[in-house]
Amino acid sequence: MSSRATPLGEFDLIERFFKTGADSMRSKADQGVTLGIGDDCALIKPPGNEEIAITSDMLVEGRHFFAGADPTLLARKALAVNLSDLAAMGASPLGFTLAIALPKVDEVWLEAFSKGLFAIAKEYSCPLIGGDTTAGPLTISITAFGSIPAGKAIRRSGAKAGDDVWVSGAVGDARLALAALRHEIDLSSEDLQRIEDRMHQPMPRIDLGIQLRDVASAALDVSDGLLGDLRHILKQSQVDAQIQLDQLPKSSILKKQESSIQNLFAACGGDDYELCFTAPSSQHEKIQEISRTLNLPLTLIGKILPQKDHQARVYLLDASGVLLSDSQAAPFLNSFDHFAQ
Amino acid sequence: MSSRATPLGEFDLIERFFKTGADSMRSKADQGVTLGIGDDCALIKPPGNEEIAITSDMLVEGRHFFAGADPTLLARKALAVNLSDLAAMGASPLGFTLAIALPKVDEVWLEAFSKGLFAIAKEYSCPLIGGDTTAGPLTISITAFGSIPAGKAIRRSGAKAGDDVWVSGAVGDARLALAALRHEIDLSSEDLQRIEDRMHQPMPRIDLGIQLRDVASAALDVSDGLLGDLRHILKQSQVDAQIQLDQLPKSSILKKQESSIQNLFAACGGDDYELCFTAPSSQHEKIQEISRTLNLPLTLIGKILPQKDHQARVYLLDASGVLLSDSQAAPFLNSFDHFAQ
Repeated sequence: MSSRATPLGEFDLIERFFKTGADSMRSKADQGVTLGIGDDCALIKPPGNEEIAITSDMLVEGRHFFAGADPTLLARKALAVNLSDLAAMGASPLGFTLAIALPKVDEVWLEAFSKGLFAIAKEYSCPLIGGDTTAGPLTISITAFGSIPAGKAIRRSGAKAGDDVWVSGAVGDARLALAALRHEIDLSSEDLQRIEDRMHQPMPRIDLGIQLRDVASAALDVSDGLLGDLRHILKQSQVDAQIQLDQLPKSSILKKQESSIQNLFAACGGDDYELCFTAPSSQHEKIQEISRTLNLPLTLIGKILPQKDHQARVYLLDASGVLLSDSQAAPFLNSFDHFAQ
Repeated sequence: MSSRATPLGEFDLIERFFKTGADSMRSKADQGVTLGIGDDCALIKPPGNEEIAITSDMLVEGRHFFAGADPTLLARKALAVNLSDLAAMGASPLGFTLAIALPKVDEVWLEAFSKGLFAIAKEYSCPLIGGDTTAGPLTISITAFGSIPAGKAIRRSGAKAGDDVWVSGAVGDARLALAALRHEIDLSSEDLQRIEDRMHQPMPRIDLGIQLRDVASAALDVSDGLLGDLRHILKQSQVDAQIQLDQLPKSSILKKQESSIQNLFAACGGDDYELCFTAPSSQHEKIQEISRTLNLPLTLIGKILPQKDHQARVYLLDASGVLLSDSQAAPFLNSFDHFAQ
């Protein structure tokens, strides 16, 4: 409630670092945003028979990213993780709001942050439409909006026994990068560079999500670890699944690691931002066609089974199709938890 | 990326403290929310020809509220400030997302927080539809959604020279409470109690906003101080304004203070969450009728003037209608800034 003026106050911040970039996108990405930054609310008007998909993610310094993280990459990732949620529903991006707490007004940092933010916003035609800036420990809270024809959203609850389980791209690289940065594992600097990009610059699978609208029975994005996340589908669909551990798609760099590390990182590494989805086996050809069209590997990794006992069970098979014992399987069936210490 | 289980992890938190309360509201407040908590995104489907109003506010411990603040009141206020933004556009609440960083999992605190949150959510038929929980310094980021017939939103840019300037309720009480809590001012414990409620429990003027859709030419909610906020309307509408300082509506408790304090707190106190709006003088009768219907004082405090020089000028008049000098007016024309130290 101070009445003293500051060199760069809240309104200037919005105006200088966020509004200009947002305005420059209006003509290009004006798919239903009728009012952007600068009023009490933004206004969006989805086309005729569309639903709005809404997702929120909060990133906290020291928890989701290291103190001193590159602000350009950080901004990119903050929006990317939200776009990945839109992708998992099959939604097409409409726009996003940004609420950000900053320890101080650091113009160099803000310049770099807004550069990263608007670069990915443009890439995915997802304009900044509003938000809030305040002083506080560095915290980035984004809420993103997408549109999708009514009834076409791909929910977690639609998987059926007999469906195939698929995953896009490759999994485990972000976890490998983290292990290398923590010096738990040695990587050549070239490999580390390539793999760090996977950690810092996830590629939201928006085009894939849209293609899967009439194909997938259920989908989600892999943020906390493939098998742990898959269990959300199993729980909501009231089914179980069997997964072929050796079928999990891995990068050539991850494949240089010993096989237990490969499987562990691929199965429960986290931060992958690939889509895991289920589909009737009648869609097999169609999915391969989508893979070719998008030039994106889509890998069949298992099958949905009838529910045994409400435990959302994942049965793991080895390369010969033999079921792993409970104790063999246990390390693969844990998931990242932000409150785990 | 820990694989150790915790007694109460992220998913349990959502399930236990937020999803149940959210689900219990679904039947009651199911105005267009087609999918709530539990998937990658929530889905809303606004009725036919409606726009969606979107607003985000972030509250940080130590900045927007004291450490140790009552979690029930805090939750209430966190949603109220967002509802107040919806009110200022004339929007009807649809739902909200909550992203919250918590220093630790404190079940007593969470119980109290969710109680306050769902109480106000029910009161305003605004269900929780999604969000994110994480560990971190206590930070509450809410994004709220409202619907409004296309083209009917009350923007800040519509004020015209000759329009009247109005404000709802009374202003300055939250600032008075803050002054008392800081021991800058003495209040009886009874007065302090009543005035603290005004600070902790703002009443979003949703019904007023809806009534003003076809009446007001511009509106905003007063969060940072009446005159400072009014300048946002002036700037966007490219007009100036004259305000009668003695006409600002004050509570009986504020009126016990000396007149300079009264005017200062009313003009630039902040945290009022009343609506300030402009309307053609032809709407005078209609506005008085709305005031009677809602049993809410609406006070005419000034007039919109043609723009002099792009400075969004507010001219202050004393009780006899005489213009205050620049030095007399200066203390009233400052506004709260979250980055001011």
